Amino acid sequence: MSRFRIAVHITPRRGILDPQGKTVADALHTLGFSTVRDVHVGRHVIVEVDAGTADSATALTREMCEKLLANPVTEDYEIASVEGA
Amino acid sequence: MSRFRIAVHITPRRGILDPQGKTVADALHTLGFSTVRDVHVGRHVIVEVDAGTADSATALTREMCEKLLANPVTEDYEIASVEGA
Repeated sequence: MSRFRIAVHITPRRGILDPQGKTVADALHTLGFSTVRDVHVGRHVIVEVDAGTADSATALTREMCEKLLANPVTEDYEIASVEGA
Repeated sequence: MSRFRIAVHITPRRGILDPQGKTVADALHTLGFSTVRDVHVGRHVIVEVDAGTADSATALTREMCEKLLANPVTEDYEIASVEGA
Protein backbone atom coordinates (compact mmCIF):
# COMPACT_ATOMS: atom_id res chain seq x y z
CA MET A 1 0.00 0.00 0.00
CA SER A 2 1.29 3.44 -0.89
CA ARG A 3 -0.09 6.80 0.01
CA PHE A 4 -1.53 8.98 -2.76
CA ARG A 5 -2.53 12.62 -2.70
CA ILE A 6 -5.39 13.29 -5.07
CA ALA A 7 -6.66 16.76 -5.93
CA VAL A 8 -10.29 17.11 -6.98
CA HIS A 9 -11.98 20.18 -8.43
CA ILE A 10 -15.68 20.49 -7.73
CA THR A 11 -17.38 23.28 -9.65
CA PRO A 12 -20.96 24.48 -10.06
CA ARG A 13 -22.38 22.92 -13.23
CA ARG A 14 -22.57 25.33 -16.18
CA GLY A 15 -25.93 27.05 -16.40
CA ILE A 16 -26.54 26.56 -12.68
CA LEU A 17 -26.68 29.79 -10.68
CA ASP A 18 -23.38 30.49 -8.89
CA PRO A 19 -24.30 33.14 -6.28
CA GLN A 20 -20.89 32.97 -4.59
CA GLY A 21 -19.11 33.63 -7.90
CA LYS A 22 -21.48 36.51 -8.68
CA THR A 23 -20.84 38.05 -5.24
CA VAL A 24 -17.06 37.79 -5.64
CA ALA A 25 -17.24 39.35 -9.14
CA ASP A 26 -19.30 42.26 -7.78
CA ALA A 27 -16.86 42.76 -4.90
CA LEU A 28 -13.90 42.78 -7.33
CA HIS A 29 -15.64 45.43 -9.45
CA THR A 30 -16.22 47.53 -6.32
CA LEU A 31 -12.50 47.23 -5.52
CA GLY A 32 -11.65 48.63 -8.96
CA PHE A 33 -10.93 45.41 -10.89
CA SER A 34 -13.13 46.59 -13.77
CA THR A 35 -11.78 44.11 -16.34
CA VAL A 36 -13.10 41.07 -14.46
CA ARG A 37 -15.76 39.43 -16.65
CA ASP A 38 -16.86 36.45 -14.60
CA VAL A 39 -15.94 34.46 -11.49
CA HIS A 40 -16.79 30.88 -10.56
CA VAL A 41 -16.20 29.52 -7.10
CA GLY A 42 -15.86 25.81 -6.51
CA ARG A 43 -14.07 23.55 -4.05
CA HIS A 44 -10.53 22.24 -4.22
CA VAL A 45 -10.45 19.02 -2.20
CA ILE A 46 -7.24 17.12 -1.47
CA VAL A 47 -7.69 13.52 -0.37
CA GLU A 48 -4.79 11.51 1.03
CA VAL A 49 -5.55 7.83 0.70
CA ASP A 50 -3.68 4.52 1.01
CA ALA A 51 -4.08 2.29 -2.04
CA GLY A 52 -2.18 -0.34 -4.02
CA THR A 53 -1.90 1.64 -7.25
CA ALA A 54 -2.58 5.15 -8.51
CA ASP A 55 -5.47 3.76 -10.58
CA SER A 56 -7.19 2.21 -7.59
CA ALA A 57 -6.68 5.42 -5.59
CA THR A 58 -8.31 7.37 -8.43
CA ALA A 59 -11.24 4.95 -8.66
CA LEU A 60 -11.75 5.20 -4.90
CA THR A 61 -11.74 8.99 -5.08
CA ARG A 62 -14.32 8.98 -7.89
CA GLU A 63 -16.53 6.84 -5.67
CA MET A 64 -16.07 9.36 -2.81
CA CYS A 65 -17.06 12.19 -5.17
CA GLU A 66 -20.21 10.36 -6.19
CA LYS A 67 -21.19 9.39 -2.65
CA LEU A 68 -20.21 12.48 -0.66
CA LEU A 69 -17.91 15.14 -2.05
CA ALA A 70 -19.90 16.48 -5.01
CA ASN A 71 -23.60 17.17 -5.37
CA PRO A 72 -24.52 15.24 -8.56
CA VAL A 73 -27.45 17.55 -9.31
CA THR A 74 -25.64 20.89 -9.23
CA GLU A 75 -21.91 20.16 -9.44
CA ASP A 76 -19.32 18.66 -11.72
CA TYR A 77 -16.13 17.09 -10.42
CA GLU A 78 -12.80 16.43 -12.03
CA ILE A 79 -9.75 14.56 -10.74
CA ALA A 80 -7.10 17.25 -11.21
CA SER A 81 -3.97 15.36 -10.16
CA VAL A 82 -2.77 12.15 -8.55
CA GLU A 83 0.66 12.00 -6.94
CA GLY A 84 2.51 9.76 -4.54
CA ALA A 85 2.57 11.40 -1.07
CA MET B 1 -7.23 43.03 -24.95
CA SER B 2 -7.80 39.29 -24.76
CA ARG B 3 -9.81 37.30 -22.31
CA PHE B 4 -7.98 34.96 -19.92
CA ARG B 5 -9.36 32.28 -17.66
CA ILE B 6 -7.24 31.89 -14.54
CA ALA B 7 -7.68 29.11 -12.01
CA VAL B 8 -6.61 29.79 -8.41
CA HIS B 9 -6.32 27.27 -5.58
CA ILE B 10 -6.84 28.67 -2.12
CA THR B 11 -6.02 26.22 0.67
CA PRO B 12 -5.86 26.39 4.47
CA ARG B 13 -2.26 27.08 5.48
CA ARG B 14 -0.43 24.00 6.80
CA GLY B 15 -0.67 23.72 10.55
CA ILE B 16 -3.89 25.76 10.62
CA LEU B 17 -6.94 23.83 11.78
CA ASP B 18 -9.07 22.68 8.83
CA PRO B 19 -12.42 21.74 10.44
CA GLN B 20 -14.13 21.23 7.08
CA GLY B 21 -11.44 18.77 5.97
CA LYS B 22 -11.66 16.92 9.29
CA THR B 23 -15.45 16.66 8.98
CA VAL B 24 -15.22 15.30 5.43
CA ALA B 25 -12.55 12.75 6.48
CA ASP B 26 -14.79 11.57 9.36
CA ALA B 27 -17.79 11.29 7.03
CA LEU B 28 -15.73 9.26 4.52
CA HIS B 29 -14.66 6.88 7.30
CA THR B 30 -18.31 6.48 8.34
CA LEU B 31 -19.19 5.63 4.73
CA GLY B 32 -16.58 2.84 4.77
CA PHE B 33 -13.63 4.58 3.08
CA SER B 34 -11.28 3.36 5.78
CA THR B 35 -8.05 3.98 3.84
CA VAL B 36 -8.56 7.76 3.78
CA ARG B 37 -5.77 9.34 5.81
CA ASP B 38 -6.45 13.05 5.53
CA VAL B 39 -8.63 15.54 3.68
CA HIS B 40 -8.08 19.24 3.04
CA VAL B 41 -10.81 21.46 1.68
CA GLY B 42 -9.97 24.70 -0.07
CA ARG B 43 -11.50 26.84 -2.79
CA HIS B 44 -11.08 26.56 -6.53
CA VAL B 45 -11.73 30.01 -8.00
CA ILE B 46 -11.89 30.68 -11.73
CA VAL B 47 -11.52 34.31 -12.74
CA GLU B 48 -12.23 35.46 -16.30
CA VAL B 49 -10.48 38.72 -16.93
CA ASP B 50 -9.64 40.94 -19.91
CA ALA B 51 -5.95 41.86 -20.13
CA GLY B 52 -3.27 42.61 -22.70
CA THR B 53 -1.04 39.62 -21.92
CA ALA B 54 -1.17 36.43 -19.88
CA ASP B 55 1.47 37.94 -17.55
CA SER B 56 -0.60 41.02 -16.79
CA ALA B 57 -3.71 38.84 -16.26
CA THR B 58 -1.71 36.74 -13.77
CA ALA B 59 -0.40 39.82 -11.95
CA LEU B 60 -3.93 41.21 -11.70
CA THR B 61 -5.21 37.91 -10.29
CA ARG B 62 -2.45 37.86 -7.66
CA GLU B 63 -3.55 41.32 -6.62
CA MET B 64 -7.16 40.09 -6.33
CA CYS B 65 -5.99 37.18 -4.16
CA GLU B 66 -4.16 39.54 -1.85
CA LYS B 67 -7.00 42.04 -1.62
CA LEU B 68 -10.05 39.81 -1.54
CA LEU B 69 -9.93 36.15 -2.55
CA ALA B 70 -7.57 34.69 0.05
CA ASN B 71 -7.25 35.36 3.76
CA PRO B 72 -3.53 36.15 4.17
CA VAL B 73 -3.53 35.00 7.81
CA THR B 74 -4.98 31.53 7.36
CA GLU B 75 -4.75 30.66 3.68
CA ASP B 76 -2.23 30.11 0.91
CA TYR B 77 -3.04 30.71 -2.73
CA GLU B 78 -1.52 29.41 -5.91
CA ILE B 79 -2.20 30.33 -9.55
CA ALA B 80 -2.95 26.88 -10.96
CA SER B 81 -3.43 27.69 -14.64
CA VAL B 82 -3.77 30.57 -17.08
CA GLU B 83 -5.40 30.01 -20.45
CA GLY B 84 -6.90 32.12 -23.19
CA ALA B 85 -10.70 31.98 -22.95
